[in-house]
Amino acid sequence: MMGRVIDFAKGHGTGNDFIVVADVDGRRPLTTAEIVALCDRRFGVGGDGVLRVIRTAAHPEGGGQDAEWFMDYYNADGSIAEMCGNGVRVFARYLLDEGLVTDDVFPVATRAGLRTVTVSGEDLTVDMDRPVFGGESKVTLGDRTLVGTHVSMGNPHLVCPVDDLDAIDLSREPVYDETLFPNAVNVEVYTGGPDAITMRVFERGVGETLSCGTGACAAAAVALGGNGTCVVTIPGGQVTVTVTTETLLLTGPAVIIAHGTTTIV
Amino acid sequence: MMGRVIDFAKGHGTGNDFIVVADVDGRRPLTTAEIVALCDRRFGVGGDGVLRVIRTAAHPEGGGQDAEWFMDYYNADGSIAEMCGNGVRVFARYLLDEGLVTDDVFPVATRAGLRTVTVSGEDLTVDMDRPVFGGESKVTLGDRTLVGTHVSMGNPHLVCPVDDLDAIDLSREPVYDETLFPNAVNVEVYTGGPDAITMRVFERGVGETLSCGTGACAAAAVALGGNGTCVVTIPGGQVTVTVTTETLLLTGPAVIIAHGTTTIV
Repeated sequence: MMGRVIDFAKGHGTGNDFIVVADVDGRRPLTTAEIVALCDRRFGVGGDGVLRVIRTAAHPEGGGQDAEWFMDYYNADGSIAEMCGNGVRVFARYLLDEGLVTDDVFPVATRAGLRTVTVSGEDLTVDMDRPVFGGESKVTLGDRTLVGTHVSMGNPHLVCPVDDLDAIDLSREPVYDETLFPNAVNVEVYTGGPDAITMRVFERGVGETLSCGTGACAAAAVALGGNGTCVVTIPGGQVTVTVTTETLLLTGPAVIIAHGTTTIV
Repeated sequence: MMGRVIDFAKGHGTGNDFIVVADVDGRRPLTTAEIVALCDRRFGVGGDGVLRVIRTAAHPEGGGQDAEWFMDYYNADGSIAEMCGNGVRVFARYLLDEGLVTDDVFPVATRAGLRTVTVSGEDLTVDMDRPVFGGESKVTLGDRTLVGTHVSMGNPHLVCPVDDLDAIDLSREPVYDETLFPNAVNVEVYTGGPDAITMRVFERGVGETLSCGTGACAAAAVALGGNGTCVVTIPGGQVTVTVTTETLLLTGPAVIIAHGTTTIV
């Protein structure tokens, strides 16, 4: 069997893991089947998604953004995603490790527009844009019905404060207002606040996960209730969210843990 | 942070995946923490276990076995395992790919003793030794109670014929005779026979899996009811089991899908 040989790196941000494939001049698009094969955790390398590293000028969706590098992000099922708070940190870490950027502050082009990344000690800070608050809505998790706040971080979130975080059942699909959320919703439950919370998350289409970058942003924004800084503890680690009048900054770790070559048959 | 750098390969047999680490002269034992970190699917490379490749003469448990290479196998939690039907094929594939063996028939030393591997076209055949039959015993899976046959392949199995394979609930821990199985039991359910069966398996301590090599052997031995050959379709693929008066042979695919370098911090 002949197979396509692909050089890859694997990295994660708070347990949200990605396969990084460099294709700087855009000569080797990945097919959906190849992305699915790469992300398969038993038959392939395994990951939550693929981050293709390509020059903005070489990507048809680059749209003239003023950044050298474009984050061409795909979910594990091969579908396109606009943004990922953890993914952009891993993408940025790869650029830094490989010497593809040398500044401490640099822009990354994404399908959701430019993001500014800042090196912050061992961590990376990403400008995630302001949260947009909607109203309240109900969600049923297991045998509990909670009231949460609708927050958009580009993608929809419903953030619910709870007293008994560990007791919340996130093993089943949440039941939510399908009129308000026609494309489903990510549900965050948290305890604590305003400057430190512990959070769990049910990601739409996935289930409970170790980490969701935009979910941490949404939950922190609700816990803060205004400008300020909130440390968010998630099952996969810890991130820090700062809300200002102009924007929202997400700071957290990102590390490349392996480099290799894989053959897709 | 300084980390230990480890060269690895990743491979799988019918979806049962392993990290292969060569340490031919036994100079770098792996700690339990390192094995756990390697096998972590989000923070590490990810796998069901680690296969350390070491010369039999260099391994304290080699015990003078007449084979150049010893399969030093660890489960993902760092515990030691004696044998693994899928693991030994992946181990053998690695030896062949790397040119560490050049014969079509060669022995592999394991904690359960010598195993003979035979190259069989694209597949590999492993001598798994005769199954040992016990009596019948009951097991409850979800709301169903089934009668199965106790088969030992070195490890304990309870093999249950069923008519409605897809309807069996393997999402919960099976309830079995703890007097008969003080160290728990792997439960196989299958339909068909005698020369072709479709099987699902609940591996003790893990849950439902894509594949269990010894489980396929046990189920085929029950379906055959004597000497013969049985093709076993499992969720992760297909293997063939041949029972003779002297032994049991397991034939199936094994492939190395990646090579790389990882840093454990």
